[in-house]
Amino acid sequence: MEPFRIHILGCGSALPTLKHYPTSQIIELRGKAFMIDCGEGAQIQFRRSRIHFGKINAIFISHLHGDHCFGLLGLLSTFGMLGRTSSLKVYAPKEYESLFKQQLDFFMTGMEYKIEFIPVDTKVSEIIYEDKSLTVETIPLQHRVPCCGFLFREKATLPHIRRDMIDYYEIPVSQINNIKLGKDWITSDGKVIDNSQLVTPAETPRSYAYCSDTKYMPELYKKIQDVTVLYHESTYASESEDRAKLYYHSTAKQAALVAKAANVGKLLLGHYSARYNCEAVLLNEAKAVFPHSFLTQEGDVVEI
Amino acid sequence: MEPFRIHILGCGSALPTLKHYPTSQIIELRGKAFMIDCGEGAQIQFRRSRIHFGKINAIFISHLHGDHCFGLLGLLSTFGMLGRTSSLKVYAPKEYESLFKQQLDFFMTGMEYKIEFIPVDTKVSEIIYEDKSLTVETIPLQHRVPCCGFLFREKATLPHIRRDMIDYYEIPVSQINNIKLGKDWITSDGKVIDNSQLVTPAETPRSYAYCSDTKYMPELYKKIQDVTVLYHESTYASESEDRAKLYYHSTAKQAALVAKAANVGKLLLGHYSARYNCEAVLLNEAKAVFPHSFLTQEGDVVEI
Repeated sequence: MEPFRIHILGCGSALPTLKHYPTSQIIELRGKAFMIDCGEGAQIQFRRSRIHFGKINAIFISHLHGDHCFGLLGLLSTFGMLGRTSSLKVYAPKEYESLFKQQLDFFMTGMEYKIEFIPVDTKVSEIIYEDKSLTVETIPLQHRVPCCGFLFREKATLPHIRRDMIDYYEIPVSQINNIKLGKDWITSDGKVIDNSQLVTPAETPRSYAYCSDTKYMPELYKKIQDVTVLYHESTYASESEDRAKLYYHSTAKQAALVAKAANVGKLLLGHYSARYNCEAVLLNEAKAVFPHSFLTQEGDVVEI
Repeated sequence: MEPFRIHILGCGSALPTLKHYPTSQIIELRGKAFMIDCGEGAQIQFRRSRIHFGKINAIFISHLHGDHCFGLLGLLSTFGMLGRTSSLKVYAPKEYESLFKQQLDFFMTGMEYKIEFIPVDTKVSEIIYEDKSLTVETIPLQHRVPCCGFLFREKATLPHIRRDMIDYYEIPVSQINNIKLGKDWITSDGKVIDNSQLVTPAETPRSYAYCSDTKYMPELYKKIQDVTVLYHESTYASESEDRAKLYYHSTAKQAALVAKAANVGKLLLGHYSARYNCEAVLLNEAKAVFPHSFLTQEGDVVEI
């Protein structure tokens, strides 16, 4: 299988600490890379990841709080200074369009690549990006400002040819693609060989749901049913559930409840409040509900 | 003497590296603190300096290239989240006023402190800030966009009373201030004691000139004559003098020529190009012209 990886550039929340960077992630799939959110310092963390800057194809901003977007102008400037020429798509809540364009005009004159702003309606669930390998859908979330998550779905690949059967029935190369697409084979004496005997099934397409920032949404599971990996914000421990509600954030337990209801493969925790010197309390509370829960840390690379 | 200190938060240039942060400094004098420039990540470095965020009284932005100002919104947001209530002055090139105010309106609603933008005309040399301890003057520089340096001048303090003489002549406490202000003393038998016998001179007022970014300005020394400490950008070594000229930057040697002509006490080098793994080449070239030259590094605290 081609690698499908999440690089955690930052997993802190709004207040900066010496331990965590604000939110940013890079998703790698089939030779392309995508960024989700871009807090201050994301470009430094990006450099540490050793992913080539030029691989970034599109940037998705979930919402317009500084800890999710204040690194954007710096990163875009750096791309320009490094001589990027290929255009770049920036998906962000539509409310940002006017200010973003003014910022580009002011700070980024003379750059030799095009930045295309794609306004996102955070209130609806729809496919906003598609290429031959994947789709990206919005996931409406509930935060203090317009906010959505992103669901990366790998497209189904074709089944694998069984080389032994192809040789046995002496099937010519010209027919391989038809067989991958589901055709049976008819031998020279008229016997029908069922397609299922000629191929092994393709891998199940993988998926990644990013949900940050949001208050606890008990119904969220319906949008992310059976995803391979879910990242769900877990700003607080249960003792601060009232605070989470007040600020439209979630507890680690609530993240785990969503993961369990959605039957996801793995839950990644993040967006930790600066109050936790050690996030073990968050992990323990999540694991009590959903055992396959994991803390993220800057520099982590998660294989999906 | 009260401490007069420069904290180097960042001394890199436009391209981010894993070694240097972009430009930012904090100036401490008599219980107050001021920030000069605020590149991305400045608030992280600020936190490392252990100076209390609340001590910052004003921020001075030299010019509007991202490596000197992309950390500003993040820092201002953090001040707000930490509950700052006292107003803050932001001095920056006047061209920024409209966009800056739009950025504040967009990203900083509900903050409980006032941010006052003071437009700076980078083309003239004038006092833009004054309190009981110091003045700050602009220093017009020549860069690709409007740019000025800042000259921090400590105000003269009063001379020190000589306790032995006060006791000897039995001068009452009520007269001490008059004597500090320069009055002579007349004894009961009419003898005039010259003021110079009653006091020791005050310390010479200290000064700090910050000059970044700029191309080599041979006449710059006239504006910064005899300053105690000069920070002058030294982006390149002499072998890249053409490149420095092209991009309106200076070499370390040129910084040293300015320091020598201005007869400054000490030269601080910074704003290093990302091409130098080791800045010793810059230091050596500066020292050959002006021996009292020093490299700055993140975390350095320079006593003036």
